[in-house]
Amino acid sequence: MAWSLSELAALTGTEVIGDPECRVYRLNSLQAAEPGDLSFLSQVRRRSELHTTRASAVVVPPQCESEVQHGLRSEQPYLTYAQLSQHMDPRGLPFSGAQDATASIAPSARLGAAVSVGPYAVIGADVVIGEGSVIGPHVVIYPGTHIGQRCLIGAHSVIGSDGFGFAPSTTGWIKIHHLGRVRIGDDVEIGASCTIDRGALDDTVIGSGVKLDNQIMIAHGCTIGPRTAMAACVALAGSTHIGADVTVGGMTGFTGHLEVCDKVHIGADALVTQSITTPGHYAGGAAGVMPVAQWRRNAVRFRQLDRLATRLAQLEKPKDSTN
Amino acid sequence: MAWSLSELAALTGTEVIGDPECRVYRLNSLQAAEPGDLSFLSQVRRRSELHTTRASAVVVPPQCESEVQHGLRSEQPYLTYAQLSQHMDPRGLPFSGAQDATASIAPSARLGAAVSVGPYAVIGADVVIGEGSVIGPHVVIYPGTHIGQRCLIGAHSVIGSDGFGFAPSTTGWIKIHHLGRVRIGDDVEIGASCTIDRGALDDTVIGSGVKLDNQIMIAHGCTIGPRTAMAACVALAGSTHIGADVTVGGMTGFTGHLEVCDKVHIGADALVTQSITTPGHYAGGAAGVMPVAQWRRNAVRFRQLDRLATRLAQLEKPKDSTN
Amino acid sequence: MAWSLSELAALTGTEVIGDPECRVYRLNSLQAAEPGDLSFLSQVRRRSELHTTRASAVVVPPQCESEVQHGLRSEQPYLTYAQLSQHMDPRGLPFSGAQDATASIAPSARLGAAVSVGPYAVIGADVVIGEGSVIGPHVVIYPGTHIGQRCLIGAHSVIGSDGFGFAPSTTGWIKIHHLGRVRIGDDVEIGASCTIDRGALDDTVIGSGVKLDNQIMIAHGCTIGPRTAMAACVALAGSTHIGADVTVGGMTGFTGHLEVCDKVHIGADALVTQSITTPGHYAGGAAGVMPVAQWRRNAVRFRQLDRLATRLAQLEKPKDSTN
Repeated sequence: MAWSLSELAALTGTEVIGDPECRVYRLNSLQAAEPGDLSFLSQVRRRSELHTTRASAVVVPPQCESEVQHGLRSEQPYLTYAQLSQHMDPRGLPFSGAQDATASIAPSARLGAAVSVGPYAVIGADVVIGEGSVIGPHVVIYPGTHIGQRCLIGAHSVIGSDGFGFAPSTTGWIKIHHLGRVRIGDDVEIGASCTIDRGALDDTVIGSGVKLDNQIMIAHGCTIGPRTAMAACVALAGSTHIGADVTVGGMTGFTGHLEVCDKVHIGADALVTQSITTPGHYAGGAAGVMPVAQWRRNAVRFRQLDRLATRLAQLEKPKDSTN
Repeated sequence: MAWSLSELAALTGTEVIGDPECRVYRLNSLQAAEPGDLSFLSQVRRRSELHTTRASAVVVPPQCESEVQHGLRSEQPYLTYAQLSQHMDPRGLPFSGAQDATASIAPSARLGAAVSVGPYAVIGADVVIGEGSVIGPHVVIYPGTHIGQRCLIGAHSVIGSDGFGFAPSTTGWIKIHHLGRVRIGDDVEIGASCTIDRGALDDTVIGSGVKLDNQIMIAHGCTIGPRTAMAACVALAGSTHIGADVTVGGMTGFTGHLEVCDKVHIGADALVTQSITTPGHYAGGAAGVMPVAQWRRNAVRFRQLDRLATRLAQLEKPKDSTN
Repeated sequence: MAWSLSELAALTGTEVIGDPECRVYRLNSLQAAEPGDLSFLSQVRRRSELHTTRASAVVVPPQCESEVQHGLRSEQPYLTYAQLSQHMDPRGLPFSGAQDATASIAPSARLGAAVSVGPYAVIGADVVIGEGSVIGPHVVIYPGTHIGQRCLIGAHSVIGSDGFGFAPSTTGWIKIHHLGRVRIGDDVEIGASCTIDRGALDDTVIGSGVKLDNQIMIAHGCTIGPRTAMAACVALAGSTHIGADVTVGGMTGFTGHLEVCDKVHIGADALVTQSITTPGHYAGGAAGVMPVAQWRRNAVRFRQLDRLATRLAQLEKPKDSTN
C-alpha cells in the first residue's frame, strides 16, 4: 500500500510540506526509517534527528517545518502519528470484523450491530454489548455484564468474575455470592489477561474512555472515572473509587475502600493506602536498584529507621536537658 | 423473587425482629437500599446508618435490635449476610450445574458426581476432581492434578503447569521436567487467572478451605495450610511453605524456600524473605504515596540510609573520643 | 519404568558408582526418597543428608563419591538431575506431540515440522512457528508473530497483543495501532499466562534461549537478549532493552525506555528506573516484613527521611557556624 502526502494530510487535518505527491509506504521511527517511510517528531528537543533520518517524509510541528524537505505540518505530531497508525495499518485491528464460529454466546446475550467476537470467547447470559465493540479471543464475560459501544477487550481478559468475599465462621470461610454486575462505558479499552470482578451488592463501574493495559486486576465494587488510564499490572482492592482523567503507573496497588480525586497522576510500583483529595503528581514504592551489598545495608537501616529518628531527636536536645 | 423474614430467619438461624411476614426482594447496602431491600449492619460503630437507610429490614446484632422496626437479630450479621447472599442470589453460581459440551476432558480423568465444567475448560489425563466442584470457563488442568470436593476454580486459571526450573550449562539452560503434581483439598476456591505450578519432585499442595483471589502465582513445591486466604496478585516462589489460617494482603511476594507458621497475617505489597515463626500481624512494602518531589528526595535518602546511620553514630560518640 | 545405573550413566555422560545393574524407578529428593529412588546432591554443604537418605542411588560430585554405595559421579549433579528429569519423566511434556483438533490455526500460518498445538490455542494469520515448538492450551498468538524452533509456550499466554499506546486529544485518548510484530528466537520457554505485546513501530524481540516464568508482562518494543531468565510476575514497560545472560527476580519491574547490559542479576520485587551499564548483582524493593507496629513507625519515618537527613547535617555543622 502507498499513500500520497496530500491524501494523508486530508485524513489527519494537517498541511503538506514539500511535494503533495510524495508517496510513503510505511510508518517508522526517525532512527529506523528507510526511504519510503513516513516518520514523526514528537519532541522538539530531539529535532537534531531530523538531519540524520532516512525517512522520505516527516510529521513535524510548525517550528521545525523548515528542517524537512517533505512531510506534514501538525500542531500535535504525536496525535497525528496515532491517526496515521490507524490509516496505515496493513492488517487492521486483529480479530475484528466477525463473530467467530467458535465463540460461545448465551442466547439471552444482546449484541449491538457490528460487534466482533474472537475465537473461543465466552459471553454469558444477559450480557449486553454495545455497537462496534471488539471482544478478543478467549475473553470470558460473566452473566449480566454491560459493555458500551466501541470497546476493545484484549485476549484472555475476564469480566464479571466472582469478587473475593468470605465471612469467617467456626467451620471456615463462608462464600459471599456476588449479586452486582460489571458496567463498562463507551470507548473503553481493556488489555490482555485483565480480571474485573463484579460487585458484592453495588456494581463495579468502568467509565467511558478508560484505558487499561494488560494484567490489571479490578476488585469488586470499584469505580473508575472517565478517561482514566492505567499501565500494566495495576491492582485495585475492593471499593477503590478512582476519579476521571487519572493516570496510574505500572504495578501500583490500591488497598481499597478509598477515593482518588480527578486529575491525579501516580507513578509506578506505589501502594496507595489512603484517599487522595488533591490533583497532582504522586509517587511511592521502591527507590530504584543499587548494588546488592548497598541495598542490604540500607534495608537493614530501614528496619531501624524509627529508632534512628529518635536518636537524632535526642542529639538535638539542648545539652543541659540531657544531663 | 420475594422472601419473608420468617423464612430467612429459618434459613440462617437468626430471629425475626418486627413483622415475620415482612417481605424483602433484594440484598443491598444500608446506603444504597431502597424499600423492599434487606440490608445488614456489620460494624456497630456505623449504627447511625440505621436511622437513614431506606431498607425495609436490616440484619443487626442484639445490641442494635431496638433501632430497627423489621429485621433479623444475629450474633454475626456479616456471616448472616454471607448466608443470605447465597439464598437470595437470583442467578446462582455462574457456569455451574453442567459439563459444557465444549470442554475438553481427557478420557482418563475421573470426575465425581455433580462436577461442573465450564466452556472450553481443558482437563488433562489422569486428573481427579471431587464431588460438586465447579471448574470455570477456560480453566486448564494439567495431567495428574488432584482436586477435592466442592472446589471452585475461576475462569482462566491454570493448575499444574510446568514449574520454572532449569540447570545452567555451557549451551544454555537445560529444562528440568516436573514430575510432581498439584494436590488441592476440599472447599478450596481459586479465583480467575491464577497459575499453580506442579512440583519438581514433591507435589504442590493447597490445603482444604484455602481461598485464593485472582492473578495469584503459586510456584513449584509450595504448600499452603488449611483455611489460608490470599488477596489478589500474591506470588509465591518455589518451596514456600505457608501454615494454616494465614491471611496475605494483595501483591505480597514470598522469595521461596521459607516457612510461615500458622495464624500469621501479612499486609499488602510486602516481600517475605525469611521464615516467620511467631503468629501475629506483619507488614512491609511501600510506605504509601506522597507528592512526587517529596518522594524523590526521600528515595534518594533511602539510598544513603546506611551512611546517614553511620554519621549519626559518629555524632553520638563522646566528644573527646572524636578528637 | 525402571532404569539401570549403567543406562542412566550413558544417557547423562556420568560414571557409575557401585553396581551398574542397580535399578531405580523414580527421581526424588534426598529427604523424601524411598528405596528404589534415585536422588542427587547438588550442594556439597548438605552432604550429611547422604547418610540419612533412603534413596537406592545418588548422583554426587567426585568429592562425595566415597559416601554413597550406588550412584552416578557427575561434575555437575544439578545438571545431571535436569537431564535425568527428562529421561525419567513418566508422562512426558504435557500437551505435546500433536496439533489438537480444537486449535484454531489461520490458513496463512506456517508451522514447522513436529509443532505441537494444544487444545483451544489460537494461531493468527501469517504466524510462523519453527520446528519442534510446543504451543500450550489456550495460547493466543496474534497475527504476524514469528516463533523459532523448540520453543515452549505455556497455557494461556498471549503473544503479540496490542501495545498500550494512546495519544491525548481533546476528545479523549486516540488509539495507536501497533504495526510491529513479536519475534521470538529458538529454545525460548514462556510460562503460563504471560502477555507479550507487539511493537508500535519496531518489533518486540525475545532472544534465543530466554526463559520466562508465569504471569510475566513484556510491553511493546522491548528486546531481551539471549539466555536471559526472568522469574514470575516480572513486568517490563515499553522499550526496555535487556541484555544477554541477565537474571531477574520475581515481581521486579522496569519503567521502560532504559537499557540493562549483559550479565546483570537483579533481585526480587525491585523497580529498575534507570539503565544499568555494569554487570553485577543488584537489588531494590521492599525491606522484608516486620511486626506491623514497627513497620508503621518506620514507614512514617521514610516519609520524613529527607528532613531527617537535613537535621543530621545541621547537627554536624561546627558549633560556631550555627550560632
